[in-house]
Amino acid sequence: MKHTPRFDSDYMQTAHPKVMEALASTSGKDFTGYGLDEICRSAKDRIARECGCEDAEVFFLEGGTQTNAVVIGALLHPYEGVIAPATGHISVHESGAIEAGGHKVLALPHRDGKLSADDVRKYIKGYYDDANYEHMVSPGMLYITQPTEFGTMYSLEELKAFRSICDKWGMPLYMDGARLAYALAADRSITLKDYASLCDVFYIGGTKCGAMLGEAVVFPRKRIPRFFSTIKQNGALLAKGWVLGVQFDALFTDGLYYECGKNGIETALALKGILKEKGYRLYVDSPTNQQFIIVDDSRIDEMRKVASFEFWDRYDDAHTVIRFVTSWATRMEDVLALRDAL
Amino acid sequence: MKHTPRFDSDYMQTAHPKVMEALASTSGKDFTGYGLDEICRSAKDRIARECGCEDAEVFFLEGGTQTNAVVIGALLHPYEGVIAPATGHISVHESGAIEAGGHKVLALPHRDGKLSADDVRKYIKGYYDDANYEHMVSPGMLYITQPTEFGTMYSLEELKAFRSICDKWGMPLYMDGARLAYALAADRSITLKDYASLCDVFYIGGTKCGAMLGEAVVFPRKRIPRFFSTIKQNGALLAKGWVLGVQFDALFTDGLYYECGKNGIETALALKGILKEKGYRLYVDSPTNQQFIIVDDSRIDEMRKVASFEFWDRYDDAHTVIRFVTSWATRMEDVLALRDAL
Amino acid sequence: MKHTPRFDSDYMQTAHPKVMEALASTSGKDFTGYGLDEICRSAKDRIARECGCEDAEVFFLEGGTQTNAVVIGALLHPYEGVIAPATGHISVHESGAIEAGGHKVLALPHRDGKLSADDVRKYIKGYYDDANYEHMVSPGMLYITQPTEFGTMYSLEELKAFRSICDKWGMPLYMDGARLAYALAADRSITLKDYASLCDVFYIGGTKCGAMLGEAVVFPRKRIPRFFSTIKQNGALLAKGWVLGVQFDALFTDGLYYECGKNGIETALALKGILKEKGYRLYVDSPTNQQFIIVDDSRIDEMRKVASFEFWDRYDDAHTVIRFVTSWATRMEDVLALRDAL
Amino acid sequence: MKHTPRFDSDYMQTAHPKVMEALASTSGKDFTGYGLDEICRSAKDRIARECGCEDAEVFFLEGGTQTNAVVIGALLHPYEGVIAPATGHISVHESGAIEAGGHKVLALPHRDGKLSADDVRKYIKGYYDDANYEHMVSPGMLYITQPTEFGTMYSLEELKAFRSICDKWGMPLYMDGARLAYALAADRSITLKDYASLCDVFYIGGTKCGAMLGEAVVFPRKRIPRFFSTIKQNGALLAKGWVLGVQFDALFTDGLYYECGKNGIETALALKGILKEKGYRLYVDSPTNQQFIIVDDSRIDEMRKVASFEFWDRYDDAHTVIRFVTSWATRMEDVLALRDAL
Repeated sequence: MKHTPRFDSDYMQTAHPKVMEALASTSGKDFTGYGLDEICRSAKDRIARECGCEDAEVFFLEGGTQTNAVVIGALLHPYEGVIAPATGHISVHESGAIEAGGHKVLALPHRDGKLSADDVRKYIKGYYDDANYEHMVSPGMLYITQPTEFGTMYSLEELKAFRSICDKWGMPLYMDGARLAYALAADRSITLKDYASLCDVFYIGGTKCGAMLGEAVVFPRKRIPRFFSTIKQNGALLAKGWVLGVQFDALFTDGLYYECGKNGIETALALKGILKEKGYRLYVDSPTNQQFIIVDDSRIDEMRKVASFEFWDRYDDAHTVIRFVTSWATRMEDVLALRDAL
Repeated sequence: MKHTPRFDSDYMQTAHPKVMEALASTSGKDFTGYGLDEICRSAKDRIARECGCEDAEVFFLEGGTQTNAVVIGALLHPYEGVIAPATGHISVHESGAIEAGGHKVLALPHRDGKLSADDVRKYIKGYYDDANYEHMVSPGMLYITQPTEFGTMYSLEELKAFRSICDKWGMPLYMDGARLAYALAADRSITLKDYASLCDVFYIGGTKCGAMLGEAVVFPRKRIPRFFSTIKQNGALLAKGWVLGVQFDALFTDGLYYECGKNGIETALALKGILKEKGYRLYVDSPTNQQFIIVDDSRIDEMRKVASFEFWDRYDDAHTVIRFVTSWATRMEDVLALRDAL
Repeated sequence: MKHTPRFDSDYMQTAHPKVMEALASTSGKDFTGYGLDEICRSAKDRIARECGCEDAEVFFLEGGTQTNAVVIGALLHPYEGVIAPATGHISVHESGAIEAGGHKVLALPHRDGKLSADDVRKYIKGYYDDANYEHMVSPGMLYITQPTEFGTMYSLEELKAFRSICDKWGMPLYMDGARLAYALAADRSITLKDYASLCDVFYIGGTKCGAMLGEAVVFPRKRIPRFFSTIKQNGALLAKGWVLGVQFDALFTDGLYYECGKNGIETALALKGILKEKGYRLYVDSPTNQQFIIVDDSRIDEMRKVASFEFWDRYDDAHTVIRFVTSWATRMEDVLALRDAL
Repeated sequence: MKHTPRFDSDYMQTAHPKVMEALASTSGKDFTGYGLDEICRSAKDRIARECGCEDAEVFFLEGGTQTNAVVIGALLHPYEGVIAPATGHISVHESGAIEAGGHKVLALPHRDGKLSADDVRKYIKGYYDDANYEHMVSPGMLYITQPTEFGTMYSLEELKAFRSICDKWGMPLYMDGARLAYALAADRSITLKDYASLCDVFYIGGTKCGAMLGEAVVFPRKRIPRFFSTIKQNGALLAKGWVLGVQFDALFTDGLYYECGKNGIETALALKGILKEKGYRLYVDSPTNQQFIIVDDSRIDEMRKVASFEFWDRYDDAHTVIRFVTSWATRMEDVLALRDAL
């Protein structure tokens, strides 16, 4: 039976072969527990170097929602909330994990998944200008996703504008990098060093970027007290922390992480070209590994025969927005085959 | 010095003289603690009778934010949130009390402070139709305010539509009645019996309606387990519970609560008439004790000399929305004096 | 019908006549909301002066459990717990309010309701010496009650020992003064100035010491950010904050608070003398307004005829511990009458 | 360099070779996300069958603390706490995860890590007999660990006694089986079917019993609503859920889980024999894979040269309790070598 190539998400394939090998190579070995082993040390050092911050603190967690909840919970005061686009992962798709931790997500309007610095500025100013501001949730952090949930990207200038807002109001800037490998490949003018220099904390996504599981939280400069205990309290501390370390060690050896991103972007852009060539209408003009198109409802069943993709949203009575996602694992031949099949 | 009449809120005056008397009359007496005394019993019985539900359970709490947090926290499962208009008190002005209790406020668009049944229906249907609904906060309760934060009112038909939505989806309907006395006076076709018959739980506001402090939570039918302990856990249980009982006992003796509402509405409508007569533009057409007008910025300082009112919002570059609030304590002569002064 | 004098608690009587008068005197007045009025200002100033700390910040809350939850929640980091005696109010009788706020109560053994500095020192040292301390709740605050739930008192030396532990470990010392009036009268060598100088934060109890409701939280030196919002978020902010201010203003005018304490102690000591004279066995040797005796089960029914008191605990198969409580309102004649009645 | 055998914990070795193989065999494959794939299905079916409950619901989580927090948080009402021995993992070593979820751990005294049914009965009866029980945290669940943190085991009779207490008071019985493989091998008279029949929910530990990471939560009978969303909200839902499923599928194929337990017990008992033979004093008489001995402080450094073990506790001024732990990976030859080395 012919295998239908999967474009429904970037967490469908197991893990990059080199990550699989690295994991397999641990068979029969033993490690100190809780991420205090030498492989975690090595992986953390590699990441810190890549970020240009030798003193950075790096922690490995298991998944994105968990990482967001742990980081946001650790940085906010109880009376603070986190500013995020209304389409942000924390705003919509984390089953209320942020609120379960006691914090409001202050959802602002988005354009193609992006916050604008102007909107953020206006919101914060409006907050402090309000005579009743003390009765309202205090904006205590800015959350962005790079690339966004719509595949779009913030430019370096846009990121600097957020940094300057955060400096002005004494708020940390936190970047959710669940798909950071693809951002790094899509816009090479923004490097990990830039992200580390701009953010107070961010995470380098593993699960969607070549790992089996795992995300690497980076605090480039300021350390926060007892983060280890915070991780434990949130049920996010693995006894066998090396499971995460060994994967990130592999991903940050010989540029594997960048390679993963590169394949995702190359296949995505090829796919985008084919879709446009075939006359499909783009819903968003995305430079990364998620591509959204508007299709006539009547065509969907037929399309499903040649590729798996995700229903995204209703567009209007007769049209649907669907999403194609590529990844480190997408084969160019599967993409090119769509030229004939679609 | 001439006293400038206060129209900035309905919690400025101390308490209705009869409530003050009732409180004073307790001097030298002693009571059983924690609201288990005979005056609380009497007050609860009066309220239950007025609601037409002899089996209703009634609890007295101290303030509105507290009441909302305790009731919502008691009724929701951890994975649920509460639907509310984006302008609802819980959405904006409770410093994140609902989120501090672990629950997301699912804020829907409003019109003049009101939710529409259609929007609620669409939202819930959209939630359950979403393939990812299990990753999203489950709508577990419907919160409305009567009258709303904009002074507007839901009609009996609108309330019935909410009831039917709640029945369909198995969700409790909770009504915040911080200003319920004014709702009862503004639309006499909806009685306490109606509210009790339509809501799973609601509260009868005391603080803004004649009491010194206190709100009466009414569960007309279904009792919820250990609500007493829940109140205690939330720091909302007064050792001297009679302080609240004695006030509600007075408010529900000889129709005092209705009288309080009546004065608020009569003075509000007189004020509204004067404002219109004077050519002021209404921001919302409110039938209750909050009146909002749009004024030219240049006039505000002058207006402050004759009455205190509240800044509500910027309307545009040259205009401001201001709020006048009347109450059980507003004197008609102060209102009428505005005819000349404004 | 003869009235049986109540010794079951110190929150049975309504409020001191001067407090009642002060409340009554507000009739017809209006005040700025949320405790920002001039009476709250006056009350706060009086308390700050009495504490010898002109810069102290004072906040009024409604009850003890609420105050404990708000203060402890505001001062602890999420990974911290609060050290308390196993008999402390927060350990046992707050329906889990501290845990509901996310914090563990680190309950240590007590002697007659008191913590010993040695036990606290050992506990903290044991914590930091434990190789797994990062997997355990970090002791982040020391909670004591003065007088304790058993009526006993910490001496000035004992309090200084706690202060020095807190200094060493960088932990705030928080004192629950629900019955502080009685502590002040029982041991005049420790004044409010001493408590203010020793504690990072403490509260001056109103509910059990002459007020109708209310507790005054005092931060003698260090201010904590956004405590107003924290109060609001906890549902503890009264719109009519003056209700609390006016009572504390009265209590701190012409030494009324001390007078309330004095009456409680004088009547308690008289009662204690009578109990001993009558051959009752003391369960604890209490110098304050709570007196505990061990009585033969067979005598209890008879005793109930002459006074109300509280069942405290089973002592053994044939004996019960009962508690007598006096207060600002206890009449010496009722106490003396017990000499004949018991 | 000679390798010092590790007896410091049962999570030091990576994973059983068959688990490693199963993971490696997924290379190049793709799976549906969030544990909805066919391997998770297979693993769940195998576990359900082994438990004798075809209708059991099984969920895979990442670690023990996380599992405890998610299960306990899902089953308790906000006003409830969980009864546990003072030495239980949730009482001591989870950085306050249970309290962070809002619940008090009601810690009861233990004997060698075990609760006694009598103590539990007395505690619950005492709670409901207390006139102030509504001011106290309601016991809402019974938590036990099998084997306990001290290596001891509950007998079938003891477990039945807990079951009957839980039935009487309508409380769920939850068993933490972090080391369940070793319990199953140590006492073969209690099978998975027994545990499933006695508990309302329990978990089958993977991390310490042959897996790389993962725990399998089993609800043998009653399903609880929206547990999937609860997992997600707690940040415990892996996008690549198959990572856990594939491991449990391997562990429950051809009795591998039992084999893992068997090796741990055989080596532990051999070690225990040697320790006794050598004249070491047992601290606890443990039939499972954790062995505790009391050693003279002066001998510890020397012992560290021949094996790694864990400091457990001070015994007295001159003696220390140390812990040796075996596992699925312990080699009998390393144990036997200790006979000469110690």
